[in-house]
Amino acid sequence: MWERGLVLSAPGKAILHGEHAVVHGKVALAVALDLRTFLRLRPCAEGRVCVRLPGVGVLRSWDIPSLQALRSGFAGKRWEEERAAPVGSRPCPVTQWDPRAADFDESKPPSVEQLDTLREFAGIAAEASAPESLATLAFLYMCLAISAKYGDVPSVDILVWSELPTGAGLGSSAAYAVCLAAALLSACRAISCPLKEGESTARWTEEELTLINSWAFQGERVIHGNPSGVDNAVGTWGGALRYQSGKITPLKRVPMLRILLTNTKVPRSTKVLVAGVKEKILKFPAIMNPVLDSIDAISQECQSVLEVMSANSSPEHYPVLEELFDINQHHLNVIGVGHPSLDRLCRVTASHGLHSKLTGAGGGGCGITLLRPDTSALAMEAAKRDLCACGFECWETSIGAPGVTLHSSSSLKAEVLHVFAES
Amino acid sequence: MWERGLVLSAPGKAILHGEHAVVHGKVALAVALDLRTFLRLRPCAEGRVCVRLPGVGVLRSWDIPSLQALRSGFAGKRWEEERAAPVGSRPCPVTQWDPRAADFDESKPPSVEQLDTLREFAGIAAEASAPESLATLAFLYMCLAISAKYGDVPSVDILVWSELPTGAGLGSSAAYAVCLAAALLSACRAISCPLKEGESTARWTEEELTLINSWAFQGERVIHGNPSGVDNAVGTWGGALRYQSGKITPLKRVPMLRILLTNTKVPRSTKVLVAGVKEKILKFPAIMNPVLDSIDAISQECQSVLEVMSANSSPEHYPVLEELFDINQHHLNVIGVGHPSLDRLCRVTASHGLHSKLTGAGGGGCGITLLRPDTSALAMEAAKRDLCACGFECWETSIGAPGVTLHSSSSLKAEVLHVFAES
Repeated sequence: MWERGLVLSAPGKAILHGEHAVVHGKVALAVALDLRTFLRLRPCAEGRVCVRLPGVGVLRSWDIPSLQALRSGFAGKRWEEERAAPVGSRPCPVTQWDPRAADFDESKPPSVEQLDTLREFAGIAAEASAPESLATLAFLYMCLAISAKYGDVPSVDILVWSELPTGAGLGSSAAYAVCLAAALLSACRAISCPLKEGESTARWTEEELTLINSWAFQGERVIHGNPSGVDNAVGTWGGALRYQSGKITPLKRVPMLRILLTNTKVPRSTKVLVAGVKEKILKFPAIMNPVLDSIDAISQECQSVLEVMSANSSPEHYPVLEELFDINQHHLNVIGVGHPSLDRLCRVTASHGLHSKLTGAGGGGCGITLLRPDTSALAMEAAKRDLCACGFECWETSIGAPGVTLHSSSSLKAEVLHVFAES
Repeated sequence: MWERGLVLSAPGKAILHGEHAVVHGKVALAVALDLRTFLRLRPCAEGRVCVRLPGVGVLRSWDIPSLQALRSGFAGKRWEEERAAPVGSRPCPVTQWDPRAADFDESKPPSVEQLDTLREFAGIAAEASAPESLATLAFLYMCLAISAKYGDVPSVDILVWSELPTGAGLGSSAAYAVCLAAALLSACRAISCPLKEGESTARWTEEELTLINSWAFQGERVIHGNPSGVDNAVGTWGGALRYQSGKITPLKRVPMLRILLTNTKVPRSTKVLVAGVKEKILKFPAIMNPVLDSIDAISQECQSVLEVMSANSSPEHYPVLEELFDINQHHLNVIGVGHPSLDRLCRVTASHGLHSKLTGAGGGGCGITLLRPDTSALAMEAAKRDLCACGFECWETSIGAPGVTLHSSSSLKAEVLHVFAES
């Protein structure tokens, strides 16, 4: 099927509640954003694999024999390293060389040696962390690993374009990794092509989604080192999921809710913010721990409301969701991850009767504003105008969006068709 | 001693932490404000008792025989009622008539009948709740009750003037009741006059303060019906006290701290706000109860810091007190007692590097802003100017002020001397 080409997409993610508290064992709710990354896979005849990400300026291609040589080089190199190294200095268990197992497996994290070799192959500096470098590295790793397991990736041309900004905590790297995993697994026939003639969209079976997710997680590991796996799970399954102490549970049913997503464009370091929260908890444990408990209860209350809404949505649910936003925004300020730009965002939207909270790491970054079904286009445009006047960037979108999806070309929206036609 | 006249004063109060949470069994910290109510007691020769409160427009006087007749009338009236009433319909225990006990006692709340009789005597309408009516009623009650227990109040002229606004939750009625209790008990010689020649101020013994406090509480009961007793305790002992589940514990040592007290002048109903908090707790118990626990921990942390500061004040304590203000202000918003005017107050002071929270009932009313010892007069004047530009009223004062105090006339500040000279 894929030989005629295919187009698929995966959603970004936002944290609805529980950011930071999740680090301390509390429940977080992550939701799929209807800002999506689109991937077009097309066969190409020249015995090459080509990847293009016009949004981040990537245009790379490799001939298949050199990728094959690279892959087989790994095994030889690892054998030599294994024999040369004294027993005591052998690599740590995570990257330990086992000649009986595959070099690449979706259950094993990419090894430092593998990534070093791929960087060298692609001409990427050791410490390069720009999106284009990491996107290229993730592509190469996934391409080699999937072909090692399921047979050579055939000659393909892959084009990726995203509605998501990078580095804004909206899961753009995970949406990319999910798209790549689905495309490469499809190209290797490890998963089916569920799109039937005449259908505009289709999704994979639960089993296939689990495989896509596990390979997308490998891509995320290449990009982020030690990701939680939440972002790729949201990109794969869509909707909303509950995350606690490493356990990810997709919610059975979730309503699609309109939101405004605003990027304050204030840069921040998630690592510094997480450390600040930890410091506050150590400084005032009796004051801060109850706040984390309250955030945990907010996530759980929100989950209940979303589940009820998906069964039977009623206008009375919106004030509750709004109140939970307001309360959590205060709590996030209490634990020290607020920012004047986020206060401003909340104030501006409040002046239009809308309720907002930061989403993700805080300290700047993005805010999420709930829209009611009856929020008028006029009110929303006015809010967007005022937010843009603050220097912020706004997207009107939805949460609870579907996960990784196959699209028929005819069903794509004009903007995506335009990008694909131009590239 | 008092025959030469005496001047005494009592402080107002502010809640530092724990407002609203205290209703749900948590710790509150109340502090004495150095905004004071002053009372001048002077003998007058005409066999009259005169009370003047130029600030609220009270100028009343009664001849002593009519007060005596009123007092003895109570006993007669109660006897008649007692004989006329069928046994089953006798008054409830609190107001039960016991011919062997005094009609007035500081341990018994004023009865409805007593207050009705006093209202009739003073020409005050049954439902009158204006400060001047309640102040007159409290004076009459305390005057009769104290003279019933300790002998006739002699011919005196009482002048009261206050730096405290009424109805702003700053304990103005308690400061008045404490001053009245101290003055009337002094006039009846139930307490000593501890001011020695050459001293500028003096305070009473612990035992005398306990007596003053219990009579001030009676005055508060006349004014408020069912007060907590915190305000009169702060007015009597000054400094700071901890209040939890009806138990009042003065802190042993408290530093005097500079503050800015701001009245937003937004009117609010404490009853409605308290009911709103209760409703929120019932609606979201798992979210709200931890917030009350966190507020409790804030009060306790603040108490520790104040105790350490009073022993060994250091600049490093101020950021902690400021952080506790910020956190509690968020919590008070979460439990629903914030107000846009209070948000504005906090924002304005924050723009001058100062930290504020609401104090008392919230929903408008007053905010308290901590000043550091090194907050420059310039910065503070700028903050005051910006707050006044919002239509707010500001006082630069201190917390941790002394409780009820006797003053030598020569030690009074000019403003008080001026008021006393004019009246």
